[in-house]
Amino acid sequence: MEFLKAVTAQQALEIINAFPVSLHTEVISLEESLGRIVAEDIVAHENIPPFSRSLVDGFVIKVKDAQGAKETNPALLYYKGEIRIGEETKAVLDDGSCIYISTGAMMPEGADGVVMQEYTRRMGDAVEITKTTHKGENICFTGEDIKLGSSVLAKGKRLTPFDLGMLAALGMADLWVYKKLKIALISSGDEIIAVDQQPEPGQIRDINRYTVLNMLKKTCSDVSFIGITRDNPEDIKEHLRGAHESDMILVSGGSSKGERDYITTSIEQLGGKILFHGINIKPGKPTIFATLWGKPVFGLPGHPVSCIMALTRFVMPLVKRLQGETKGGEKRTTGTLTTNIPSSYGIEEYVRVTIVYDEEGCKVTPLFAKSSVISSLSQASGYVIVPGGREGFEQGDEVEVYYFE
Amino acid sequence: MEFLKAVTAQQALEIINAFPVSLHTEVISLEESLGRIVAEDIVAHENIPPFSRSLVDGFVIKVKDAQGAKETNPALLYYKGEIRIGEETKAVLDDGSCIYISTGAMMPEGADGVVMQEYTRRMGDAVEITKTTHKGENICFTGEDIKLGSSVLAKGKRLTPFDLGMLAALGMADLWVYKKLKIALISSGDEIIAVDQQPEPGQIRDINRYTVLNMLKKTCSDVSFIGITRDNPEDIKEHLRGAHESDMILVSGGSSKGERDYITTSIEQLGGKILFHGINIKPGKPTIFATLWGKPVFGLPGHPVSCIMALTRFVMPLVKRLQGETKGGEKRTTGTLTTNIPSSYGIEEYVRVTIVYDEEGCKVTPLFAKSSVISSLSQASGYVIVPGGREGFEQGDEVEVYYFE
Repeated sequence: MEFLKAVTAQQALEIINAFPVSLHTEVISLEESLGRIVAEDIVAHENIPPFSRSLVDGFVIKVKDAQGAKETNPALLYYKGEIRIGEETKAVLDDGSCIYISTGAMMPEGADGVVMQEYTRRMGDAVEITKTTHKGENICFTGEDIKLGSSVLAKGKRLTPFDLGMLAALGMADLWVYKKLKIALISSGDEIIAVDQQPEPGQIRDINRYTVLNMLKKTCSDVSFIGITRDNPEDIKEHLRGAHESDMILVSGGSSKGERDYITTSIEQLGGKILFHGINIKPGKPTIFATLWGKPVFGLPGHPVSCIMALTRFVMPLVKRLQGETKGGEKRTTGTLTTNIPSSYGIEEYVRVTIVYDEEGCKVTPLFAKSSVISSLSQASGYVIVPGGREGFEQGDEVEVYYFE
Repeated sequence: MEFLKAVTAQQALEIINAFPVSLHTEVISLEESLGRIVAEDIVAHENIPPFSRSLVDGFVIKVKDAQGAKETNPALLYYKGEIRIGEETKAVLDDGSCIYISTGAMMPEGADGVVMQEYTRRMGDAVEITKTTHKGENICFTGEDIKLGSSVLAKGKRLTPFDLGMLAALGMADLWVYKKLKIALISSGDEIIAVDQQPEPGQIRDINRYTVLNMLKKTCSDVSFIGITRDNPEDIKEHLRGAHESDMILVSGGSSKGERDYITTSIEQLGGKILFHGINIKPGKPTIFATLWGKPVFGLPGHPVSCIMALTRFVMPLVKRLQGETKGGEKRTTGTLTTNIPSSYGIEEYVRVTIVYDEEGCKVTPLFAKSSVISSLSQASGYVIVPGGREGFEQGDEVEVYYFE
């Protein structure tokens, strides 16, 4: 009954995506910036490499001087010394001559190719070239990696180790990023106890604190655990007030009607507004989205699997947006279903799966377990989405699998 | 010439996989254990849930009392009160009666099903049940998630947020893990300068420090940067000695013959032994593997892409083994090539690719760039392996793609 107003997954995302965002920036060192979101469009102020370099150990030549050269008919060039790595190359290459160069060293003027050492024979003051070299062969030209003035990284990109390498190449020892998102996490439920407590009959330990907190840790957010609130408005409000300094509040638990009502009324009594209550998904239906003190608040289901699916599909997109991330792909794969997946029409369903690669390709096997079963998540590599408009998938169907992050 | 002794990728992995490993353990708190490797086989010492619980808000019944019940022909049961969540349920259900239960509360003795509130009508002291309930419906039974005595996690597993949730359920506030791997990183090359220095002609900034260090950070290792060594045996030996306390040493750079020779002779002069020098792969060929002071040492190519591919394919498996990880899947997908990938027979080749999902499926596009080009890595989502026994792939071929970690 209380779900009469439940929204579709699509509507829920539209409401979430309309939540206003204000971003703040700070300067940090390149050393600390893995996983952070760059807050400036980065344009190369240098060419990388800053000079043309040899990609191999060998001899720099004018390619015309070794045209048609082969093992049985080598070209003979004058040996004019060696280029030292790490220094400016002042030598100029004359017609009919060659200079030894090592990998990474600066090309001399006049040269347009490098022939690998393997295709050469040193004979005193001369060098035999036993292979024809193409123009530009084995050279990395000035700006070939990154061109002066080119766009290197767009604002809103989450920095990978490779991005940091590129920024290092450009000498960016520090850079503008968006400030870390502060997320407060509250567990709720009269039956919930802390991990180090011994449960009395009827009590269970807090699971969602560990799953949710650690999934959010991976997003480079500052996550703080406020505590376990009991199922009454006073305690819930007390805990929400404790989360006042954060940018986003997550309350896990409240899977029963009474608890859900306490969470929504507590938010409203503090001056907040419920934006939706219930999504037509399975698992994860009793998800609440609200605004309080201008911050987004999610009420996540208590069942561990429901909680993680609501987090993955609905909270994570907003976390990324509040972090300033504008583009970011999910890791996916496709595979063949080993069994049927039955599903109800009209509900978007998330089915945990295992993924096994064998000689026939990628095999996807659903893990059918109740939404309260945390062990099924620990075994899962990813999940399949059954859209609301489908009544499941059949064995042998090719399905898309989303990896858990 | 110096690569006459180059090994195949397969041989290289065999040599690396034969490197002896000794593991050390420590106890840490559950809070700090994300990404660490569990060092004990974990067996459940409790049932999870520790009692049978309702999965929904509704009424606990004996299912035989509502057999055949439907909207037009409801079963009428006596209302016998409410079960409180978080407490021991002492009530016993009698024939012909029902008790209100909320999600997560403990089932009473005598009940074998829960009918959702939506399919009930409260009428004073009685409740109409408008739907037939199956035996066990909407109940999560004692031990259904984790059975007392069952294996929960095997030694050698890298802990995910979901694993931590499972350990929390079992009350494991701290646990045995393998000690963090200490990895020392040295950059080498006369042309290499630090990120905050302005390059003179012929010099370039250290890229590999940032790519390698940050890729290793993601494995939960302690990575320390020793410094940039110049291309002479004395300086190289000095830097290697500075890495003496670590469990593994990586020297990036040394792509030219002279540098490679200095690295191998320096290792030998310190009493180490070269295990291979050169792998028949592209890029990444000038990779060195050695043992020094009983620790593994890798000499990684200087070109950023070569360095990352050698790290990904050859260093990472050993990092994981030295961390104690015994099982761990790579994230993969399959897709259709949008262009040909030419490749030389006899060399295992790694081709960076972008991955785009559209309505026709997964499109895989090679990024053809020289091995010195870091910007191509920043754009890549993964890579395709062309085995040594193939001369490339053709446009339209279905290929396997490995995601970068």
